[in-house]
Amino acid sequence: MPAADAAIDALRERIPSSPILTDPDVTEGYRRDFAKDPDAGRPLAVVRATSTADVQEVMCWASENAIAVIPRGAGSGLSGGATAVTGGIVLTTELMQDIEVDPVTRTAVVQPGLLNAEVKKAVAEHGLWYPPDPSSFEICSIGGNAATNAGGLCCVKYGVTTDYILGMEVVLADGKAVRLGGPRLKDSAGFSLTKLFVGSEGTLGIITEVIIRLIPKQAPASTVVGTFPTVADSTQAILDITRVMRPAMLEFMDRASIRAVEDVKRMGLDVDAHGMLIAQSDSPGADCSREVEFMAEAFRNNNAADVFTTDDPEEGEAFAAARRFAIPAVERKGTLLLEDVGVPLPALPQLIERIEEIAAERDVLIAVIAHAGDGNTHPLIVHDPNDAEETARANLAFGEIMDFAISLGGTITGEHGVGRLKKNWLPSQVGEDVMDLTRRIKSALDPQNLLNPGAMF
Amino acid sequence: MPAADAAIDALRERIPSSPILTDPDVTEGYRRDFAKDPDAGRPLAVVRATSTADVQEVMCWASENAIAVIPRGAGSGLSGGATAVTGGIVLTTELMQDIEVDPVTRTAVVQPGLLNAEVKKAVAEHGLWYPPDPSSFEICSIGGNAATNAGGLCCVKYGVTTDYILGMEVVLADGKAVRLGGPRLKDSAGFSLTKLFVGSEGTLGIITEVIIRLIPKQAPASTVVGTFPTVADSTQAILDITRVMRPAMLEFMDRASIRAVEDVKRMGLDVDAHGMLIAQSDSPGADCSREVEFMAEAFRNNNAADVFTTDDPEEGEAFAAARRFAIPAVERKGTLLLEDVGVPLPALPQLIERIEEIAAERDVLIAVIAHAGDGNTHPLIVHDPNDAEETARANLAFGEIMDFAISLGGTITGEHGVGRLKKNWLPSQVGEDVMDLTRRIKSALDPQNLLNPGAMF
Repeated sequence: MPAADAAIDALRERIPSSPILTDPDVTEGYRRDFAKDPDAGRPLAVVRATSTADVQEVMCWASENAIAVIPRGAGSGLSGGATAVTGGIVLTTELMQDIEVDPVTRTAVVQPGLLNAEVKKAVAEHGLWYPPDPSSFEICSIGGNAATNAGGLCCVKYGVTTDYILGMEVVLADGKAVRLGGPRLKDSAGFSLTKLFVGSEGTLGIITEVIIRLIPKQAPASTVVGTFPTVADSTQAILDITRVMRPAMLEFMDRASIRAVEDVKRMGLDVDAHGMLIAQSDSPGADCSREVEFMAEAFRNNNAADVFTTDDPEEGEAFAAARRFAIPAVERKGTLLLEDVGVPLPALPQLIERIEEIAAERDVLIAVIAHAGDGNTHPLIVHDPNDAEETARANLAFGEIMDFAISLGGTITGEHGVGRLKKNWLPSQVGEDVMDLTRRIKSALDPQNLLNPGAMF
Repeated sequence: MPAADAAIDALRERIPSSPILTDPDVTEGYRRDFAKDPDAGRPLAVVRATSTADVQEVMCWASENAIAVIPRGAGSGLSGGATAVTGGIVLTTELMQDIEVDPVTRTAVVQPGLLNAEVKKAVAEHGLWYPPDPSSFEICSIGGNAATNAGGLCCVKYGVTTDYILGMEVVLADGKAVRLGGPRLKDSAGFSLTKLFVGSEGTLGIITEVIIRLIPKQAPASTVVGTFPTVADSTQAILDITRVMRPAMLEFMDRASIRAVEDVKRMGLDVDAHGMLIAQSDSPGADCSREVEFMAEAFRNNNAADVFTTDDPEEGEAFAAARRFAIPAVERKGTLLLEDVGVPLPALPQLIERIEEIAAERDVLIAVIAHAGDGNTHPLIVHDPNDAEETARANLAFGEIMDFAISLGGTITGEHGVGRLKKNWLPSQVGEDVMDLTRRIKSALDPQNLLNPGAMF
């Protein structure tokens, strides 16, 4: 492709300080995110942008040459939002990692490549806290968090990424960089464009900076853990808790997840239980122990065995870590198709029950973990990609779970985004009229369809 | 206008169950919102919609006849967002007042005409709380709150309207009704269209239902009040507090506001003080008294006299009510041009100082109240509309305050919206590129410019 080569050479001249990778052995590592999309293409190049100005140059160049640009954060996405396309380039913001914390306004200006954990650490030095905590917080970037409106474990009380993004700088399809919002807690001037770009998965622009809202550091959390003889008992305990109080965490693991974690970690988890709940309260003072005792009582009222409470944050964190470890633990049993369906809370028991049936019907292992307090579940569908027949069954289960979540008034994705893996289900969730609205906005902002083509639509 | 009359007659036949008012004596009451826009036009009719289906019919009819539609909630807006235009109609949702509370998912489905206070009351019956609390909460509607992304006093801790809107039903320019979002705490499926419509001031669609997020009822608040010898002392106290903790309320009144309230209420406020702060903590248990004592200490450290604390919620509410009463109290001195500028917190002292200078330079009374904890101020510019010269000076001050807020990295509107009164300043706040982006979205969704033409743009 000499024309393409010439175009890449021209790009090199325009952005001398941003590395451009073209060696196929190197670009191979940028073809897929954690969704391991089997349909990933081969990019012309990978641009490791080092500045907003260079991202602007890339988009000007892409517009002139009609070349698709796949924006990429840390590549930890789970829906194929950063899958490379043949003939396009991948633009990663992984090298852009500055952060400036302003403790007086309790905000920080952050470049997109900084990892979520690094953001948390930098603001903690000022006694501040950035709540959103995807399980992947040690390896996912704040830019990717903003692009997917990422969630996490504490969102049940503290909200999701969009609740903490006050403003951003974003490079549009035509190469213009605009500043949206700012370090102001209140701003009703014009459309809420910041909020529109959060969760737009790189299809409307490339986020080159975010302004995040911070809150005073979290009080030490107390934890309650319990195992249940049936899934129904554990989901009833969830409802008994959430109708009265807001836990700082309320996580569910089913038997397959418990066993997968216990296989590796040897924590002494009850491998005969059908459900485990891990809940936390971070309310201050006496309220904390009152809330933990209330939750422990809700566990016991629903037949929990081994109800364990602790006010030692490290001991509590060990259980949260076990829950976060569930995905890698289950992954040892095979390749995962990772679901992210959510439903209104009262429908949670129905959803988990139906997932068990689908696993049986399709004869695949499905381990279920859930941010149970907000109705967001992660069924992990295990399969061997070299077994075409099993893979086909896993894919059927993947679709059936989304179909069922939609039928319950739920969502196909609570926090991972639509990407390429779930886009065929988006119309049946939101309806054709909303798809039309979505396409009109996309066309208005990216008429050449240069930005992340194939994702979401 | 026989053609217009015929069109209205045709509309009557299409929506027999929604009253259509055409008597000029009656429609007069719908020509302006609380901004009292002097340029208000004379509408062909006022439609009091009673259902989503009728709003759809109205928009189909408006599209066919190219007639502008001014959406209107309770008419309590302060930026002229609901000013009528000649040749158009006003569509008010004031008759749509249903609410359905779901205590298990802690959400409510609400029609737009229900007043904010009525929403609070309905959910309180289930032990729940809808936080956003504009000072006008007893007379403003939830639909208008959503359309302007309204704020209030508790937003410093609890966030603004957009943080509580999980979904909505909205009628588009072409008459289609779409459902966005839903009763799910997490949803990353597709663009965040719900958030785009919040704060779009009726220029993109007509909100016919909102799904709001509720939280458990607020703990009883303790209050601390203090008066300061200088504005600078009070703003320093604000910064000393917000850098450490999150009060549940942190309100400022300047001397002119204190005096205006005292004139009417006779509460014994110190009319020689140059600033008064009213702060609250609603943290549970011992944390509440600890926070109140911390704030009282910050007051004293900044030369406050008469620092008064109370854990009696009713006594505290009397001070909050005094603060909310400041606007009507100042209004007794003349007609108000009501500002809503916000700045990053450290710039608050500069802003208030400059407002005092502008008042002196332009020889108009400007009383300043502020949601000080989030940097959002309401300078109230008093003038006599029958005095053309004074009105001109007031208008100059109005613009100069916005210009100065913009120069400090602030916003022209923290919570009231742009409407018609502030639209000339929007481009200088957000820049031409963002205006272009905004116009592209507006054109994509409302190509005929039927929805609230003249507002925001």
